[in-house]
Amino acid sequence: MPARPHGRALDALRPTTLETGTAPFAEGSCTITMGMTRVLCTASVEERIPPWREGRGGWVTGEYAMLPRATAERIRRERRGARGRTQEIQRLIGRSLRAAVDLKALGGRTVTVDCDVLVADGGTRTASITGACVALEMAFQRLVADGALSAGPLRQSVAAISAGMVDGEARLDLEYAEDAAADVDFNFVYLEDGRLVEVQGTAEGAPFTRAELDELLRLGASGAEALIRMQGLAISHLR
Amino acid sequence: MPARPHGRALDALRPTTLETGTAPFAEGSCTITMGMTRVLCTASVEERIPPWREGRGGWVTGEYAMLPRATAERIRRERRGARGRTQEIQRLIGRSLRAAVDLKALGGRTVTVDCDVLVADGGTRTASITGACVALEMAFQRLVADGALSAGPLRQSVAAISAGMVDGEARLDLEYAEDAAADVDFNFVYLEDGRLVEVQGTAEGAPFTRAELDELLRLGASGAEALIRMQGLAISHLR
Amino acid sequence: MPARPHGRALDALRPTTLETGTAPFAEGSCTITMGMTRVLCTASVEERIPPWREGRGGWVTGEYAMLPRATAERIRRERRGARGRTQEIQRLIGRSLRAAVDLKALGGRTVTVDCDVLVADGGTRTASITGACVALEMAFQRLVADGALSAGPLRQSVAAISAGMVDGEARLDLEYAEDAAADVDFNFVYLEDGRLVEVQGTAEGAPFTRAELDELLRLGASGAEALIRMQGLAISHLR
Amino acid sequence: MPARPHGRALDALRPTTLETGTAPFAEGSCTITMGMTRVLCTASVEERIPPWREGRGGWVTGEYAMLPRATAERIRRERRGARGRTQEIQRLIGRSLRAAVDLKALGGRTVTVDCDVLVADGGTRTASITGACVALEMAFQRLVADGALSAGPLRQSVAAISAGMVDGEARLDLEYAEDAAADVDFNFVYLEDGRLVEVQGTAEGAPFTRAELDELLRLGASGAEALIRMQGLAISHLR
Amino acid sequence: MPARPHGRALDALRPTTLETGTAPFAEGSCTITMGMTRVLCTASVEERIPPWREGRGGWVTGEYAMLPRATAERIRRERRGARGRTQEIQRLIGRSLRAAVDLKALGGRTVTVDCDVLVADGGTRTASITGACVALEMAFQRLVADGALSAGPLRQSVAAISAGMVDGEARLDLEYAEDAAADVDFNFVYLEDGRLVEVQGTAEGAPFTRAELDELLRLGASGAEALIRMQGLAISHLR
Amino acid sequence: MPARPHGRALDALRPTTLETGTAPFAEGSCTITMGMTRVLCTASVEERIPPWREGRGGWVTGEYAMLPRATAERIRRERRGARGRTQEIQRLIGRSLRAAVDLKALGGRTVTVDCDVLVADGGTRTASITGACVALEMAFQRLVADGALSAGPLRQSVAAISAGMVDGEARLDLEYAEDAAADVDFNFVYLEDGRLVEVQGTAEGAPFTRAELDELLRLGASGAEALIRMQGLAISHLR
Repeated sequence: MPARPHGRALDALRPTTLETGTAPFAEGSCTITMGMTRVLCTASVEERIPPWREGRGGWVTGEYAMLPRATAERIRRERRGARGRTQEIQRLIGRSLRAAVDLKALGGRTVTVDCDVLVADGGTRTASITGACVALEMAFQRLVADGALSAGPLRQSVAAISAGMVDGEARLDLEYAEDAAADVDFNFVYLEDGRLVEVQGTAEGAPFTRAELDELLRLGASGAEALIRMQGLAISHLR
Repeated sequence: MPARPHGRALDALRPTTLETGTAPFAEGSCTITMGMTRVLCTASVEERIPPWREGRGGWVTGEYAMLPRATAERIRRERRGARGRTQEIQRLIGRSLRAAVDLKALGGRTVTVDCDVLVADGGTRTASITGACVALEMAFQRLVADGALSAGPLRQSVAAISAGMVDGEARLDLEYAEDAAADVDFNFVYLEDGRLVEVQGTAEGAPFTRAELDELLRLGASGAEALIRMQGLAISHLR
Repeated sequence: MPARPHGRALDALRPTTLETGTAPFAEGSCTITMGMTRVLCTASVEERIPPWREGRGGWVTGEYAMLPRATAERIRRERRGARGRTQEIQRLIGRSLRAAVDLKALGGRTVTVDCDVLVADGGTRTASITGACVALEMAFQRLVADGALSAGPLRQSVAAISAGMVDGEARLDLEYAEDAAADVDFNFVYLEDGRLVEVQGTAEGAPFTRAELDELLRLGASGAEALIRMQGLAISHLR
Repeated sequence: MPARPHGRALDALRPTTLETGTAPFAEGSCTITMGMTRVLCTASVEERIPPWREGRGGWVTGEYAMLPRATAERIRRERRGARGRTQEIQRLIGRSLRAAVDLKALGGRTVTVDCDVLVADGGTRTASITGACVALEMAFQRLVADGALSAGPLRQSVAAISAGMVDGEARLDLEYAEDAAADVDFNFVYLEDGRLVEVQGTAEGAPFTRAELDELLRLGASGAEALIRMQGLAISHLR
Repeated sequence: MPARPHGRALDALRPTTLETGTAPFAEGSCTITMGMTRVLCTASVEERIPPWREGRGGWVTGEYAMLPRATAERIRRERRGARGRTQEIQRLIGRSLRAAVDLKALGGRTVTVDCDVLVADGGTRTASITGACVALEMAFQRLVADGALSAGPLRQSVAAISAGMVDGEARLDLEYAEDAAADVDFNFVYLEDGRLVEVQGTAEGAPFTRAELDELLRLGASGAEALIRMQGLAISHLR
Repeated sequence: MPARPHGRALDALRPTTLETGTAPFAEGSCTITMGMTRVLCTASVEERIPPWREGRGGWVTGEYAMLPRATAERIRRERRGARGRTQEIQRLIGRSLRAAVDLKALGGRTVTVDCDVLVADGGTRTASITGACVALEMAFQRLVADGALSAGPLRQSVAAISAGMVDGEARLDLEYAEDAAADVDFNFVYLEDGRLVEVQGTAEGAPFTRAELDELLRLGASGAEALIRMQGLAISHLR
C-alpha cells in the first residue's frame, strides 16, 4: 500500500493557516490555506433581505468560484459558474453557515460570503466553509463594534472537512491526487458542539459498507475538532 | 407527539407501484407511484457516447423535471430547470444509476433516463432513482433481445429512499408535509448487495447527533431492501 | 391509392377520450387521447392579471411542451421550448381559448392552461386546444362552486381539428405518418355555434387549389362538431 | 359605416413600389413600399447548406426584424427578436419562398433573405414576402450571370397580401389603423398560377362565418394577382 | 506609394450628406452618407429617466447596430449585438452626445439615439456620432416647438472623424479598404469650440511616434470643422 | 488647490511592486501592486490556435475580471462580465500585449493572460497590462527552457499608465478618488522603444484642449518609462 503524499498520517490534516483581513474593502475576510489549496473568503453585509425573508430575520448566503488558473488546466471563465456543481457547492456553503448563525438576531441584513479559490488542490468546498465562518464572524464583530448589533449572531463555529476511501484505507483531508483516486469521497460539516449539519458521501468507484462509513465519520469528527480550534485562535486575534 | 399522516408506522413505505411500458416510444419506461408522488421514467438509448468517454465504455445519465402543475402552486416553465437544485438532483440520479451498471459492457452507447415528475408529494428524487433503474433494465433487456448485447449490463438493482427526523422521531419515506417540517432530511442510495453508493443528509432545522444518524441509516436500509424486492418483481414481468 | 392506417374513413376521427381530474393539485385538468396522441392539460388559476390587462377583465393563456420521450426520438430538454414552433403553438392555444371565454366575466384572474404532450402521434396542437377547453371549464366550475364567480365565463365550447391533402385525397385528423406525407396541412378552430376562430393552412408539398380548400373546410367542420359533443359529455360529468 | 383612410376602395391595394439594388453589397436586394410601410429585403447566397439538407438540394430561409423606431413607439433592441411573433413570421417567409423555388436546381447553396422593416404601418409580413421574392430572383439571376447556374431556380413568383373584416366589411391590404380595429385578419400567400401556399386567419374580435371567409379569399386572390404583375415588371428591369 | 481610392487628397473627407426626417415616426431622424457608408440615426424621446439619474437631469444614450447585409459578408443577427465591439461603440456614441448636451436643461427625459448602419464602408462609428447629433437636435427642436422646453439643450454641435497611418502617410476619413490596411487608426470627437471630448487610437500594425500622432490630430481637427459646418446647414433647414 | 492623496507629486507613480510565481499551476504569473490596487496576472499556454489564425502564427489574448469584493461595494458575480466595459478592457489588454510579441515566432500556440483584480483602487486596466507583460515573459521563458522555442517571442516590454486632468492640473497614475473627480481620463500604452500602441482619452467632465493633451502625453511617457525599468528587474530574476 503506497504511503500518503508527504508521509502524512491517515488522520492528519494538511498544514493549515487562517489569515484575516486579506480583502481590505470587505466587512470581513479570511484567506484559508490547507496544503496547496488556498481560498479567499470575503463577507459582505447589506442592509436588506430577500423579499421572501421579510419578517423572518436576516439571511446568510455563500458564493463560490475558481480563478481560471487555480487548477493545472485553465478553466474558461464562461464555464466556471455555469455548471451544476458550482451551484451545489454554493448551496452547501450557505446551508452550513446558516446552521451556525442566529438569523433572527442578525436582523434585516444579508451577509454574502464569497469564496474565491486562488489555488485548488482538493478540498476547496470544505476549506471554503471553514474560512467563510471566520470571515463571517469578523463581519459580525464589526457590526457589534459599530453598534449595529448588541451581540454577534454566530452561535458557535462551523467547520468542514473531507475524508475518503483510497486504496482500501480511510484517509482524512484528501488532496487532489488522492481525491482523483478515491473510491468514496465524503464531506462532513460539524458544529462546535459536535453535532453534524451535513453529510455528503458518494461512491465514485466501489460502493462502501456501513463499517467504512463509521470509520470515515470518526476521522471527520477529529479533523473538524482541530479546525474549530484554529478558527477560535484566528477569531480571538480580532477582538 | 402527532401521528404520521394516514397512521403510517415510522418504518413503513407509502403504498408503492412500479408500472412498466408507460411511454410507448421509449426503449424502456416505468411509472413509479409512492403515495401521491408519481414519476414517469423513460430510458432512451443512443448509439454514441460523449467525446470524453471515447474508449472507456458507455455512459448513463439522468435528467429530472417537474410538470408545471405537479405541485400545489404552478411552477413557471422557464424556472423549472434553471435552479441549481434540479442539476444537483440530475447529478445524483446519474451517479446512482452508473454505480449499478457495467459501463464497459454497455459498449459505445449512452442511455439517458428522463424522470418527469407528474405529481410531487415528497421523495421525488429518490422515487426517480428507483423507477429509473427499472426503465434502464427494460431498455437493457431490449438491447439483449435485439442481439445488440449478449447480456444486460445491469450488475444489480439500485434503489433510493429518504428518511428524516420529524418531531424528534426518525421516520422513513417522508411525504411533503413531513419533509417541510423535518429538522433533518436524508437520502440514501443502496445497491442490492447492501452496500451504499450515496448518503446525503442536511439539517434544515436542528443539527443531528451521531446516534440519530445511526437510526436513520437503519431505516433507510430496510426501506431500500423492500424497494429492491419490488423492482425484482417489476423486472421479472418483462422477461 | 393506399388506404388510411387502421382502415379509417377519410372523414373519421381517431378513437378519442377526454378524462378529467388527472392532475390532482390543479384547479382543472383533462387528459385527451386521440389514437396514440395523448396530452395532459391543466388549468391553473391565479388571482392577478398581467399589468397591461389592468381594468380590462381577466386573461387566459396557454403553454405547450413535449416530454422528452413523447416522440420516436428523444428531444433534448433545452431545445424543447427554444424553437419558434413552440411559441407559435402556444399563441394559437391562447387565442383559441380566449375566443370562447368572456374575459370581463372572469374578473381579475389569469388562467394558464398547460398542455404537456405525453405521447405525440400527430395533431398534438389541436388535441391540446380541445382538451384545454375541458380543463378550463373544470376550473371555471370550481370558481363558481367556491362562490368566487356567480356564473362560469365560458361562452361556448371551442374545439380544434386538423385536415390535410394526402396522396391527392382530403383526410380528417391526420396521424403522424400521414402528416409527414401530407402535401397540405390545415388546422381549424371552431366554436360551438359553427363559426371559425382560426384557419391555418400550409402547403408543405404541392400548393392547393380553392376547391381542395373547400373540401378540407367541410371535413374540419364535421370533425369539430363531433369533438364538441364529446366535450359536452366530459363536462356534464363534472356538474 | 366610416370610409377607409384616403378614400380607398375595399378591394384596392395601397400605392406600391418595388425598388431593386438598394443594398449594394448584397447579391439581391429590393425595397418594397406599400403606403407608409417600407421593408428592405436582401438576399445573401452562401455556398453551403445546413447539415440536414445534405444531398437534398439547396435551402432558402427568411429572417425578419424591425428597426427600433419603425413604429410609433420605440421597440427595445433586445426585445425585437425575442418574441415568438418574430419567429412565426420568419417561418412564414421561409415556407412561402421555398414553395416558389426548385431547391434541387439551386444546388448546394443557402439563400438567406433578410427582411428589415424600416417603416411599419401594417402588412409588414406580407410585404416582406412580396419584396423578398424579387430580391431572391435578383440573386438567382446573378448566379446565372456568373455561370454558377444554367437557369434560375425560381419556378414562379410568390406574393402575399392581407385582408380582413373591419366594421363588418371585407377589406383588402389593411393598414395599421384598420388592422388594430379588425375583427378578423387573414394573410394569403399565392403563387403566379393561382394556387395557394398559405392561409392564416385569426378572429381577434368576433368569429367569422364561412361566407365571410369566402369573400376574404376573393379579395386576396385579386390583390395577389396585382402584386405578381408588379413583381414581373421589377424583375424584367434586371434582365 | 499608391494613391488613395478615387484620387482623394490626404486631408479630404469623402462626399458627405446629412438628410433629416428619414424615419417619419421618430421625434428626430437623420441619414448620414459618407462615401458608401450610410447610417440611419433616429432620436426617441421618453418622459422618464433611469433610476440612478433621479434628481440629476435628463439622459442621452446611443445604440448602434448593423443590418445583416450592410457588409460584404452577411453578419448573423444573433451575433451583431453580442460582441464587445458593439457595446464599446455604443458607449462612445453616448459619451460623445452627452458632452454636447446640457442634461439639466433636458429635464426628466431620456433621448435614445439609434444608429443603424445600412451600408458599412468604414467610419461607421464616427458617422454615427455626426448623424446622431443632427437627429438629437431635431428632437430637441420638436420639444421646444411643443412647448415642453423653452430652449434646446444642445450646447454646441459634436462631430467625429477618423484618421490613420496608411502606407506611411497620415490620411483623413479612412474608407474600409484603407482601414483594413492601416497601421494606426484614430477616432477623434470634437466640439464646435475646438475642444476634444474623445481620442481613441490603436496601432493595429506598427506602433506610432509622437510626431505621427501630432499629424493625425491636425487632420482630425480640420475634418471635424468641416462636418460641424454641414451639421449647421442641416439643422438650419429644420428651423 | 487641494494636494494629491499622500502628498504625491503630480508626476509620481504610486508605490509599485511586481511579484512573480504567485499562481503555482500557471506557466507564468505576476501579481502587480500599485498603491492599494492589486491584480493577479496568469499566463496559460495552449498548443492550439483559433481557427482563423491557421497558418498565421500564434495568438495572445487577455481576460479581465474583478473579484466580487475587490471594490467598496460588492459586485454581483453575474454582472461582473456582462458589461461592455469588461470586454472593452479585455480587448485593450490583448491588443497591447500582441503589439509587443512576435506572433510568428510563438508558433501554433495561444497564450491567454488572465488579469483578476483582487483589490481595485483605480488604474486596474493599466496595471493589468503591465503585470500581464511580466507573466507573459515568464511563460515564454518556460517555453524556451523546455526547448519548445529557441528564443522568447517578446520583442520588447509593454507597459501602460493613466493620467488625467483633476482640479485643473495634469496628474499621473490616478487612484480611485482622483479618477472619480477627474474631468479627463487618459490611458497610454507604451513600448520599451518609446513608441505608442494605444491612446484612449475621454472627457468625463469638461472637454480638453490640445495643450492639455500634450501635457498628459508627457506625464504618460515618463510613467511608462519607470514601469518598464521595473519590469526589466522582475524579469531578470527569472533568468
